Amino acid sequence: MLEKKINASAEVTVLEDGKSENWTVQPSYAAQHCKNFIRDIVDNLNLQPNPEKPVIALSLGDPCVYGNLSPAPEVVQAVADVLVGGRSNGYFPSVGQECARQAVAEYLSVDGAQISPSDVILCSGCSSALEHAITVLACGKKGHNILIPRPGFPIYRTLAEAIGVGVRYYNLLPEQNWEVDLFHLESQIDHNTAALVINNPSNPCGSVWSEAHLRAVMSVARRRRIPVIADEIYERLVFPGESFISVAALEAGVPTLICGGLAKRFLVPGWRLGWIVVHDETSALHDIRSALVRLTQRTIGSCTLIQAALPAILQQTPITFHSNLAKTLQRHAQLAYECLKKAKGLTPYMPQGAMYMVVEVDMSGFPMFSGGLELAGRMMEEESVFCLPGEVRVPLV
Amino acid sequence: MLEKKINASAEVTVLEDGKSENWTVQPSYAAQHCKNFIRDIVDNLNLQPNPEKPVIALSLGDPCVYGNLSPAPEVVQAVADVLVGGRSNGYFPSVGQECARQAVAEYLSVDGAQISPSDVILCSGCSSALEHAITVLACGKKGHNILIPRPGFPIYRTLAEAIGVGVRYYNLLPEQNWEVDLFHLESQIDHNTAALVINNPSNPCGSVWSEAHLRAVMSVARRRRIPVIADEIYERLVFPGESFISVAALEAGVPTLICGGLAKRFLVPGWRLGWIVVHDETSALHDIRSALVRLTQRTIGSCTLIQAALPAILQQTPITFHSNLAKTLQRHAQLAYECLKKAKGLTPYMPQGAMYMVVEVDMSGFPMFSGGLELAGRMMEEESVFCLPGEVRVPLV
Ligand SMILES: Cc1ncc(COP(=O)(O)O)c(C=O)c1O
Ligand SMILES: Cc1ncc(COP(=O)(O)O)c(C=O)c1O
Repeated sequence: MLEKKINASAEVTVLEDGKSENWTVQPSYAAQHCKNFIRDIVDNLNLQPNPEKPVIALSLGDPCVYGNLSPAPEVVQAVADVLVGGRSNGYFPSVGQECARQAVAEYLSVDGAQISPSDVILCSGCSSALEHAITVLACGKKGHNILIPRPGFPIYRTLAEAIGVGVRYYNLLPEQNWEVDLFHLESQIDHNTAALVINNPSNPCGSVWSEAHLRAVMSVARRRRIPVIADEIYERLVFPGESFISVAALEAGVPTLICGGLAKRFLVPGWRLGWIVVHDETSALHDIRSALVRLTQRTIGSCTLIQAALPAILQQTPITFHSNLAKTLQRHAQLAYECLKKAKGLTPYMPQGAMYMVVEVDMSGFPMFSGGLELAGRMMEEESVFCLPGEVRVPLV
Repeated sequence: MLEKKINASAEVTVLEDGKSENWTVQPSYAAQHCKNFIRDIVDNLNLQPNPEKPVIALSLGDPCVYGNLSPAPEVVQAVADVLVGGRSNGYFPSVGQECARQAVAEYLSVDGAQISPSDVILCSGCSSALEHAITVLACGKKGHNILIPRPGFPIYRTLAEAIGVGVRYYNLLPEQNWEVDLFHLESQIDHNTAALVINNPSNPCGSVWSEAHLRAVMSVARRRRIPVIADEIYERLVFPGESFISVAALEAGVPTLICGGLAKRFLVPGWRLGWIVVHDETSALHDIRSALVRLTQRTIGSCTLIQAALPAILQQTPITFHSNLAKTLQRHAQLAYECLKKAKGLTPYMPQGAMYMVVEVDMSGFPMFSGGLELAGRMMEEESVFCLPGEVRVPLV
């Protein structure tokens, strides 16, 4: 303090002072506590692949990497039309353009779900949607926690911890199609639990829950008065024969923020178009709704070219585009599943949707590796195959 | 607590309990404290314009509203090429694509500024850049504050208060070309001051600081060891005869995060392409740099179509595009200035750049209005002209 006061009126003193030249700026609490676990592993592991084998990167949920999966021509045309039209370069409302919100509401109003345009808030990718959803419900200062699935998408933890919100894991049961262990879920709830995050279809499980199970999960939330954040980024991205039920289609009586976007089902993750749907039969979310609007005003939404193209994107993508994508993903999953099933010590779990597969490793079959991380590292170095290591702390079977 | 425990094992009890049906979810601290003052006024004032006169909206810094200002054809073509190329739909690195960062570094390395690609982090608009910059430096938990200009862009306060960081205003001096009142600035600094935000060219003043004044401001920051956030979204958007100096061109010895983007100079605010440049001669920002990388991993950057087009956008926009835009803005400003100068009780301040004009109102000349807010409201209702009211708490002269 004193030193500072002196400095203020005596520039020369400070400039001559060696210590003052040693100026280090410390990152804030939020910045220090912000960690994206996947990206950290992927960006920092810094593994060298085997130079004689082309890299097969199975580490990120990006369907575009290999160029074999592309968006529908109708989707590209829609953006091209907007671009050439030249009328969508300015600011749109921070919650998104009205006709784009309308288009999302219609697109999601299927199978019993009724969504109105004013329920829809557009965001820069589903990640931003999740960030807003967690931020609006939970608060580090209050000691809040949120419940997130294990195994699950690591960004929930990243987003929560960056704002000082704790996470508590609830287990998914591999032998029960990765359904929620409801007893375990219930045991994780305390009076500081601000939200329950569910993810169906699931990254990384590839599971698609039945309506009965979804109802069972929601009824815990209802009974314990925990609002739900439903990450439905893989909505309707299910293999032939499976069916996806949105929480918006249940009248579960649970205030829910549904997060989704174009990234996966339309094969354009880079376009950063996501949304939050405020699903609120009980009118519990009245203040949350306006608070979400305020949150979007901080950084003002997603690219207007994509927003303006959204009605055409959602309406004109042929139904066969979606069904072909699902078939392709299933074929690939089946192929991987059949191969992996034969490998001693590996137990692949055949997915029902999304674009992931969990492979359980019986480490007793791999005594030469200290753990999953080393196994993944060596797979990269020897075979140039990059998988994400993960640990499910409960015994898988 | 007890009630919750009972609820957990007795669904029926709760569902029969009338009070439990009354379920209200409260927004978090962050959501409650997040307020975008401009958007709030604009979206919520809900004024009815005079139906007989077309609305003239002067309230948002959006150059695209009237369709008279459009991006260069080269810029549109660049995005079209990327779109049709079909190779930029997937995820890019969270800090931005390498060649896009390189292009920004080259674009900004002028007039003595030396910027390398690794200094550049791409963000979803300059607003996100500012959000990251404030978040990485300041922390609500620690009682930090940041210094922001008065008059100034209200989003600095929005972003800071949403994370619990306080703001302290330093005065700009209208009679001195809106230069910083250095004594006042100095008096606002305390041991909790985590950053000094400067904005040159300025919204709303339209002022463009001289190199000497910029140096004077930076030397206060240096002496007091306050890192600077330099909002240069209006870089080089100055009227003929004026010249813009970036803080990157000074060797001021102050660790600085420079925020900018395509929005204004390229007339595409809706595209949401912004950047942070880590300008750090003293190596004080080593940890800040990696913390910024982590912050970008939360929501993963801006639209890849625009990122991939960035090299062409920045290199191929004709120099005449920029000079014509500056001339147009100057002509418009001059026109408004000449008219307003004649109005009794109004003192317009002729800008030197950007796209704003401050008009001082001598309220003693308008005794029928209680203040600036009412004046602005009546202007909308009677003349359909929408200006942003503002209060500069110190006497302007
Ligand atoms: C479960 C889940 N939620 C959200 C996201 C993020 O989606 P976006 O790219 O739209 O931010 C992903 C991406 O992999 C995901 O797997
Ligand atoms: C001073 C200033 N900084 C930042 C911004 C935000 O820019 P962007 O639209 O790229 O988020 C604006 C927009 O008006 C501005 O005036």
